[in-house]
Amino acid sequence: MTNSSVPAVESEANQLPEMFRKYRSSINEAMRNALTQDSSQVYDMLRYYLGWVDEEGNPTVATEGKFLRPTLCLFACEASGGSIRQAMSAAVALELIHNFSLIHDDIQDHDETRHHRKTLWAVWGMPKALVAGNVLRVIADASLEGLLREGVEATRALAVVRQLTHAYLAMIEGQYLDLSYEGRSEVGMPQYLDMIARKTGALIRCAFTMGALIGSNSDEYIEAFRESGSSLGFLFQIRDDILGVWGEEENTGKPVGADIIRKKNSFPVVYAMSASEGDDLRQLRDIYSKEKVSESDASTVLTKMDSLQTRGHARALAVEHCDRARDALAGIEMSADARTQIDELLRFLLDREH
Amino acid sequence: MTNSSVPAVESEANQLPEMFRKYRSSINEAMRNALTQDSSQVYDMLRYYLGWVDEEGNPTVATEGKFLRPTLCLFACEASGGSIRQAMSAAVALELIHNFSLIHDDIQDHDETRHHRKTLWAVWGMPKALVAGNVLRVIADASLEGLLREGVEATRALAVVRQLTHAYLAMIEGQYLDLSYEGRSEVGMPQYLDMIARKTGALIRCAFTMGALIGSNSDEYIEAFRESGSSLGFLFQIRDDILGVWGEEENTGKPVGADIIRKKNSFPVVYAMSASEGDDLRQLRDIYSKEKVSESDASTVLTKMDSLQTRGHARALAVEHCDRARDALAGIEMSADARTQIDELLRFLLDREH
Repeated sequence: MTNSSVPAVESEANQLPEMFRKYRSSINEAMRNALTQDSSQVYDMLRYYLGWVDEEGNPTVATEGKFLRPTLCLFACEASGGSIRQAMSAAVALELIHNFSLIHDDIQDHDETRHHRKTLWAVWGMPKALVAGNVLRVIADASLEGLLREGVEATRALAVVRQLTHAYLAMIEGQYLDLSYEGRSEVGMPQYLDMIARKTGALIRCAFTMGALIGSNSDEYIEAFRESGSSLGFLFQIRDDILGVWGEEENTGKPVGADIIRKKNSFPVVYAMSASEGDDLRQLRDIYSKEKVSESDASTVLTKMDSLQTRGHARALAVEHCDRARDALAGIEMSADARTQIDELLRFLLDREH
Repeated sequence: MTNSSVPAVESEANQLPEMFRKYRSSINEAMRNALTQDSSQVYDMLRYYLGWVDEEGNPTVATEGKFLRPTLCLFACEASGGSIRQAMSAAVALELIHNFSLIHDDIQDHDETRHHRKTLWAVWGMPKALVAGNVLRVIADASLEGLLREGVEATRALAVVRQLTHAYLAMIEGQYLDLSYEGRSEVGMPQYLDMIARKTGALIRCAFTMGALIGSNSDEYIEAFRESGSSLGFLFQIRDDILGVWGEEENTGKPVGADIIRKKNSFPVVYAMSASEGDDLRQLRDIYSKEKVSESDASTVLTKMDSLQTRGHARALAVEHCDRARDALAGIEMSADARTQIDELLRFLLDREH
């Protein structure tokens, strides 16, 4: 549980690792093929959200995300002996479901921008945005029909559908827990970890699990990737939480302390509360029970977090999950190249700046 | 296209036909089994919406709906030679998806009550209601896993999943069209019919199609039930539209002219506009372009509708779809009892008061 096995290479942190670059163009192509319908404005809304067109439907220089989930799915498929062709429809489904959940999140949180662009409801209004999200969700389901076309047998295809359904259910249950925790100051570390294991972890874990299922259909591989994916989910969210408090605005698009001002129940605050007592704890709770957290409140919270070495504890937990994610795959056969890619991935997830 | 083949028995209209009574208790039981999770408040919200508990989670005298879609699915399965046990998970999925769409509709339309009960967002707020809807949607997906457990082979199970996915996509596209038409006064009859074929028709058509697919797996049966289900969808929605304008408040829970005041693009207004010209048309358009339609505006519209015999034309189209729904099944083998049940169903859908 030391950092020694995962050297942080800050200067490379902004570069996407090999694993991402390798699959990027084929994921992009498959994503666009999943959204070729042009019969209705709703598909233009979705193409806008995915970064391919502007608000008027004119093509833009694409601003897609990292494609984390589809990349993990394709990698797990290939690393466990399969062909990425067979896993592509599952990979696309993961990315579409991820985006669907962001569209609905924007509505729930009344967020008007994401990644420096206006959100769907901010442009087209809530009712249409809600429906557009639902459309994307069902296109994800329809994408899985590609499994049969690519020769995955029916029982295995059904097992993939089942994986995605349950990961998705866990994800929404996590979103619901997150909403339930809003404005509550007594969320403990176990509750927080359970929430992120679902809200963020489920889909990431599912990406690795589905990849191994399609690629090998061997219980050994599936279990190893499931366990590894589980730790990847924690790693990803904990780094997200670190960036939400200490990330530079130029990288994250949010000011330092952003998650404190938004009163998000993220790792730093849950940790700070669980490690505080007496007056310190009372003061933290007072701030988190306010209608609106001021910048000076945020500074107070940041100072307390610093004195508790909150950032260091968050990083230690992230490093622990790096090690677990690697160790979970130690027992299965995999090429040396695949293991190198896993190491690169872990380093990237640990040190990314946005 | 006469009414002679479908005698209207007004006094029986409020009674559910045999087909509904036959499956009701087993659908109810299966629905409850699909929602046994009690780990989270979100499931209490869903049980509330389905009419089983009150806002505090205490059991109530149940107020479930008609179970139209699951009933159609089980009937089609049995009538085409299958066992309802095998179709039950598909039937439940249909009813859950229907309710999911109502939960999101309530949010989109800001409706605070439905069937005389407060809607989810009115009780728990929009974010939680949105998520609860999504949970119900995914429980519907998970329900389909019951197909395998009941011995439906994998390829046929995948075909069922595919049917539901595409019906659901068509349904949301229809919802989107409906939203796009809001406040527009130039929606023509073809656009209106296309919209309801998706928004309402898709799931009803799918109920019959899935039932036949599970029950027989014969193209002949599947096609016959698909075509019949398609007309059932029109029949159902046109009757709904008639009730939305001329239904008695004691039956529908809405005042006469309710859909006019809500400026809904339903059959009566689309028909009235398409059959009007000159000053009449201008006056209708003026009223529909107002921010708020008054009761006196509604009276004006009702008078114009009467002079155009709008209600009679709506009924004639409903009767036409009654005949089509019956004729579509004429060529397949089916018991005399099943045909009697179909006739009862059609009479009910044509004359129902709520």
